[in-house]
Amino acid sequence: MTKRDFLAMEDWSPDQVDALLALAVRCKRGEIEGGLAKKVLAMVFMDPSLRTRASMETAMFLHGGHAVCLEPGKGSWTMETDLDAVMDGSTVEHIIEAARVLGRYADALAVRTFPKGNDWTIERQDRTIRNFAHYCDKPVINLESSRRHPCQGLADALTIREHLGETQGKRFVLMWAWHPKALPTAVPASAAIAAAHLGMRITIARPPGYDLDPDDYGAIRSLASQRGGSLELADDLDGAIDGAHAVYAKSWGSLLHFGNPDAERSWRDGKRDWRLTADRMRRTAGGTGIALHCLPVRRNVEIDGAVLDGPQSAVVDEAENRLHVQRALLLELIGRNPD
Amino acid sequence: MTKRDFLAMEDWSPDQVDALLALAVRCKRGEIEGGLAKKVLAMVFMDPSLRTRASMETAMFLHGGHAVCLEPGKGSWTMETDLDAVMDGSTVEHIIEAARVLGRYADALAVRTFPKGNDWTIERQDRTIRNFAHYCDKPVINLESSRRHPCQGLADALTIREHLGETQGKRFVLMWAWHPKALPTAVPASAAIAAAHLGMRITIARPPGYDLDPDDYGAIRSLASQRGGSLELADDLDGAIDGAHAVYAKSWGSLLHFGNPDAERSWRDGKRDWRLTADRMRRTAGGTGIALHCLPVRRNVEIDGAVLDGPQSAVVDEAENRLHVQRALLLELIGRNPD
Amino acid sequence: MTKRDFLAMEDWSPDQVDALLALAVRCKRGEIEGGLAKKVLAMVFMDPSLRTRASMETAMFLHGGHAVCLEPGKGSWTMETDLDAVMDGSTVEHIIEAARVLGRYADALAVRTFPKGNDWTIERQDRTIRNFAHYCDKPVINLESSRRHPCQGLADALTIREHLGETQGKRFVLMWAWHPKALPTAVPASAAIAAAHLGMRITIARPPGYDLDPDDYGAIRSLASQRGGSLELADDLDGAIDGAHAVYAKSWGSLLHFGNPDAERSWRDGKRDWRLTADRMRRTAGGTGIALHCLPVRRNVEIDGAVLDGPQSAVVDEAENRLHVQRALLLELIGRNPD
Repeated sequence: MTKRDFLAMEDWSPDQVDALLALAVRCKRGEIEGGLAKKVLAMVFMDPSLRTRASMETAMFLHGGHAVCLEPGKGSWTMETDLDAVMDGSTVEHIIEAARVLGRYADALAVRTFPKGNDWTIERQDRTIRNFAHYCDKPVINLESSRRHPCQGLADALTIREHLGETQGKRFVLMWAWHPKALPTAVPASAAIAAAHLGMRITIARPPGYDLDPDDYGAIRSLASQRGGSLELADDLDGAIDGAHAVYAKSWGSLLHFGNPDAERSWRDGKRDWRLTADRMRRTAGGTGIALHCLPVRRNVEIDGAVLDGPQSAVVDEAENRLHVQRALLLELIGRNPD
Repeated sequence: MTKRDFLAMEDWSPDQVDALLALAVRCKRGEIEGGLAKKVLAMVFMDPSLRTRASMETAMFLHGGHAVCLEPGKGSWTMETDLDAVMDGSTVEHIIEAARVLGRYADALAVRTFPKGNDWTIERQDRTIRNFAHYCDKPVINLESSRRHPCQGLADALTIREHLGETQGKRFVLMWAWHPKALPTAVPASAAIAAAHLGMRITIARPPGYDLDPDDYGAIRSLASQRGGSLELADDLDGAIDGAHAVYAKSWGSLLHFGNPDAERSWRDGKRDWRLTADRMRRTAGGTGIALHCLPVRRNVEIDGAVLDGPQSAVVDEAENRLHVQRALLLELIGRNPD
Repeated sequence: MTKRDFLAMEDWSPDQVDALLALAVRCKRGEIEGGLAKKVLAMVFMDPSLRTRASMETAMFLHGGHAVCLEPGKGSWTMETDLDAVMDGSTVEHIIEAARVLGRYADALAVRTFPKGNDWTIERQDRTIRNFAHYCDKPVINLESSRRHPCQGLADALTIREHLGETQGKRFVLMWAWHPKALPTAVPASAAIAAAHLGMRITIARPPGYDLDPDDYGAIRSLASQRGGSLELADDLDGAIDGAHAVYAKSWGSLLHFGNPDAERSWRDGKRDWRLTADRMRRTAGGTGIALHCLPVRRNVEIDGAVLDGPQSAVVDEAENRLHVQRALLLELIGRNPD
């Protein structure tokens, strides 16, 4: 029997994803007790976190298990990710050993690793998370890698279903937002894949130069078409939002200038109006479409405070659902018979 | 039903505080088992901690619960506290979202947030802890804010009672001590409020320019008078200590020079004799008064090693009592029927 | 009844160590459940860790307990180790108070404290860990101090026994390896002491200037002779490895240049060939000797990737065994009747 990892939503079949979401609903209703007694999750955070850490740790605890949290470069050793490195520099521990050793202590490994390099042709291979999975004998969970944030995608899907009910054919807009830094594309790609899973009509609204990786578009399109949805691209933000049922605001850096912050900043210049405002929320379907964001969000920069604090915001539900989808995921990957 | 927070001892009625202390005694005796099964406490530490973290985590565990520990700016995102901020600078997550989200994962939220600004007219409003409480649907516990450290106050009260028995009318001296840095006033204010709760005759001995905030004096005086005690101020340290039953040594910065470290340092200059020495401990009532300090303490600067290591020191008991009062507090705020 | 600490393997009798190892084997087989319910371990990490933190935390959890992890200088206060310090500088908390207070919260204290000074005549006294033990009322466990890493030594011993079966008289080579930094000697000393416990014929192969402390040689020789083994020193690496049953590669800094990184670096210069290669592993007994290392290891610098990834590597088993020996140690020091 081979182990199962959860590195990207599209690695699992739609039926498997639907089963996870159904189990998450039962977790949220309080119908599932136990299942993770004596189970240990080792988490490796190469980058900061609030929701992910708190929700994974809580998920393990609520079902009787325990999560260990390691932070390379802070309390833990700096990690080398190059498989062939001659380690005579500053990195102390290779991810090969970390993956193997943590697989001996824990029942599953969960890793957060943002893109670090400056060459998208390398980063787009998502090597670090895939190498962790390769060298670890236990299931590996992606807590956001260079390309994907599938636990967020699960939470996005659950939240949209809760708010919209039937999602088939409803309109999902992923809108690029201005932000003072060039952020990764893992969240927007995963959000659109989640919407594709729900069979939604997806519009990605972004300014010139802010396309996701062509493979992301391929993955979104392929899953959307399989599930009865569609993907289109737009550069007219207001037009895209007109009649939308869900608007997912998110910033990401231009891949044209990946690893070149100064050029990216210049390119981004003048686009601060790409912001989710209360006016724009009134353009949504019946003026009652929902606003989504993975959080943390730059208030009044990506999304206005009035939207975040208003009745159309689903961002706190979305964050809460991280907990429930991860409970389901952990039960599925390493759970024993729940009580 | 509205939720209850614990932001300052004087926010609770004296009867409620006495009930907490009584429950803490029973916890310490080992009479209370369980009560926090499946309960989660989310702790946000914007500043360092040893006792607080270790004792809260232990308190949750001993009764079957779990504490999650988040550190903004270290493993977690840097946090924005200005409610109206346009977040295009370096802070990544607003406390509004943090408070709302953590309230979804956890049964209570506990926050440490030292004063950060340089304007006491702002800091004295204790906005950050109060905003956390406002935006979180679950009970919020103050683990030391700009103005108060009420868990420390509870431990101070319990320790004084254990050592002195009847406290009514006994003499409590809060003495300012020299320290290489200007520290906040939350601990001394909370210690004096605890002594006021115990109906003690309080003397605050400090050099010129080291008065606590007028509102602190008001809170201390009001509670002391309600409980049969009193407050007086003194600038003669030795005279104040003569006949004292408890001496609480603590450094704090001059509010006259709040946010101006150089001026504060000059003002502080020449006051290194404000130190709790063995000679001074011999001046206490019967030469057996107790020495208190919240810890961490600068050895041989705030208090001499001979005092800390001697029979009159109650500082380790005081630190231990953090555990027991917090067990009581957590049981009171989020406990189910204890076993 | 006096409390027991675990500061160095040789502080315990060989029978006590054998009993620990036997209990570790039973833990690994899954024969021991519970034993640490309501027990708390306070861990103080003055230096980074991956295996130690993850395995201690897991060990406590698997038997029903909980480990609290404190990091002075990161989330916790910077610590003063000089017993007589006048603390008017940058350190905030004295280890005297930390040891006393944590002994009130926890059932045992575990401390990692690498050598920090630049004077080996001071550091060789291993004062910090011994002061923690002196001032704490509860058992203190050494998680690597200036001189010893006894939990690692226990894991080394268990791993060698698992791989070699009977160890009496078999050949153990501790080989110095080149590394970009001057590392402490705690691990190599503890590994050789572990091999001495197993009654092995020990060879320490190192270039000129890389001798361990004379007291280490004394401890190794004394225990080896008591257990039927021996110690010899060599400067011919290949010759030492010929016919070895176990090769423990490890770098450490020259004590001749302790606290003088530039001089040490020059001295180390030109010794990069002191590396455990696949060729060298073929020189071992029957070409099947095992390769050991405490990890983290500098791949292709201390040990070649081909060795680490090959069939003779026991390093991952060795890391796993940290968990099991520590389970045994915790049960021994603070366990109640296991289930």
